[in-house]
Amino acid sequence: MPKHGSRIPFKAHPKAIVESCSIGDGTRVWAFAHVMAEAVVGQDCNIGETVFVENGAKIGSRVTVKNGVQVWEGIVLEDDVFVGPNVTFANDRNPRSPRSVAAGDRYESKKWLEGTIVRKGAAIGANATILCGLEIGEYATIGAGSVVTRSVKPFELCYGSPAAARGHVCMCGNKLGRSGRGFACKVCGRAYIADRNGLRLAPSGKPKRRVAPRRDGKRKETGHA
Amino acid sequence: MPKHGSRIPFKAHPKAIVESCSIGDGTRVWAFAHVMAEAVVGQDCNIGETVFVENGAKIGSRVTVKNGVQVWEGIVLEDDVFVGPNVTFANDRNPRSPRSVAAGDRYESKKWLEGTIVRKGAAIGANATILCGLEIGEYATIGAGSVVTRSVKPFELCYGSPAAARGHVCMCGNKLGRSGRGFACKVCGRAYIADRNGLRLAPSGKPKRRVAPRRDGKRKETGHA
Amino acid sequence: MPKHGSRIPFKAHPKAIVESCSIGDGTRVWAFAHVMAEAVVGQDCNIGETVFVENGAKIGSRVTVKNGVQVWEGIVLEDDVFVGPNVTFANDRNPRSPRSVAAGDRYESKKWLEGTIVRKGAAIGANATILCGLEIGEYATIGAGSVVTRSVKPFELCYGSPAAARGHVCMCGNKLGRSGRGFACKVCGRAYIADRNGLRLAPSGKPKRRVAPRRDGKRKETGHA
Repeated sequence: MPKHGSRIPFKAHPKAIVESCSIGDGTRVWAFAHVMAEAVVGQDCNIGETVFVENGAKIGSRVTVKNGVQVWEGIVLEDDVFVGPNVTFANDRNPRSPRSVAAGDRYESKKWLEGTIVRKGAAIGANATILCGLEIGEYATIGAGSVVTRSVKPFELCYGSPAAARGHVCMCGNKLGRSGRGFACKVCGRAYIADRNGLRLAPSGKPKRRVAPRRDGKRKETGHA
Repeated sequence: MPKHGSRIPFKAHPKAIVESCSIGDGTRVWAFAHVMAEAVVGQDCNIGETVFVENGAKIGSRVTVKNGVQVWEGIVLEDDVFVGPNVTFANDRNPRSPRSVAAGDRYESKKWLEGTIVRKGAAIGANATILCGLEIGEYATIGAGSVVTRSVKPFELCYGSPAAARGHVCMCGNKLGRSGRGFACKVCGRAYIADRNGLRLAPSGKPKRRVAPRRDGKRKETGHA
Repeated sequence: MPKHGSRIPFKAHPKAIVESCSIGDGTRVWAFAHVMAEAVVGQDCNIGETVFVENGAKIGSRVTVKNGVQVWEGIVLEDDVFVGPNVTFANDRNPRSPRSVAAGDRYESKKWLEGTIVRKGAAIGANATILCGLEIGEYATIGAGSVVTRSVKPFELCYGSPAAARGHVCMCGNKLGRSGRGFACKVCGRAYIADRNGLRLAPSGKPKRRVAPRRDGKRKETGHA
């Protein structure tokens, strides 16, 4: 029996539509969600109600997608990502109705499609809008209601309309403060160093306060978290 | 037979999921909505399509929740509140995916949860985003598309991203104008006085134009209002 | 047999609710969508998942309505319109919960209702909010996440919160540049002249690069476009 991760087959609410065969163990799909046949979803994910996962979308493991989100073709959510409720991704910069005469041959191929990648551990706050062709860096946090029009660096905190960099966040989710020439988290003790690509965990960056490992699959589920 | 209020049992669309036993008479739940077992909903409410009411959420009486809204644990909607379509509440200030290693023990208890209370009669416009740990005052109005990052005083009109105070609204929904040292509504005649907590109805504040009482349950329903 | 347009009857997912008899040929209604009995939908439309089309709403032909949108009474979408995911329309400028005492007789008639018309070929980006009583001009484009508080001229590109005019777009969806005293599209070659009502196609405005006509109904559907 493996040490980490539930080896429980994925579980879909009877009112969900799951057509994909590529859904990892321990994943849970809520009512009125729809995972199309050619979508890929990893292990231990939580796919909220009315979520739509389109053919070609890729979702890693331990990802949380709250209600009302669409994960279109071209969208990649790496492991551990959090996508808040009603967050909306775009995948077409100059949309027209595909069956209109004016759209011409725009939708004959997939050249119109501009994907977005959300890197490991990033969190996108409630009702944010993510334009297309972007990269949201590892463990970055997007504030609720933001409109993200440019790529976001690792560990960056961005919010507003359009979203701008307003600080940095720790892997654990809390804000980072300055610490010597780098950054540190007062909550978990992790340390970071900055370079032109944004922050990265310092070689000595492991948390000083012990953070208990997750005991997956043991909690009583009372809600949607 | 009571004078006010329908004594009609609540009515759920056959494609809704209603698990709660605490739903008041006269309430209507539309298709693809889901009210969890430990959610509380009062009388004469309207719960729109694809609305999700989580365990621990509390909704008063005569509340309207339009399509696409999630009422999470920690969210309280008092009597007479209006929540527009796709309005999105947050209840976690520093979200991470709960099953990620980086989240540590954050989701072992409910300490992460920050609720929001929407006071009696307030109205939240379409697609607004409401951050967590806030209070929306009595009869306040939030403009459509706003991002609310701070608490809102009674009778205040707030909008923008982030939402800011832009004026005052009457109980009846119309804008208030200055009147002597207080405020008054030109439409219904109600008068208000201001203090540090915001506006409150003046002792002489009852409407001069008679406003007909509602004859509940008598109208032909043609839509979703 | 007609040259253009599929003569295939409309197709609804078994988990959609279609009560209207006024749905054109070739239209497709996805799962968990609901088209009420007195709604009108034209030919070759795409009505996405969890979309709600209320009694009194009017949708033309070749319109795309992506997931999570509500088309309320009073909303008119002309031919060839694109409405992005989670776009939210309002139709009440001063909403209160209709069954609250404070709302008085406001909801006894339909005087509260302020419609919005979206003209032929316009495109509304993901998660935008459209206030009520507005006109979105022909082929205008609204940026993702925008909050539209005023009417938009034909071929105008608007975005932001509140949305402001930021340029012009071609029928084909691409940005227009200045060309002599008018505007022209570098992608398809169409030319436009400007007057006080906004842009209109120049008499010589037909595209110089041939744009292949659509061969409707022939593509393999792999997604939601």
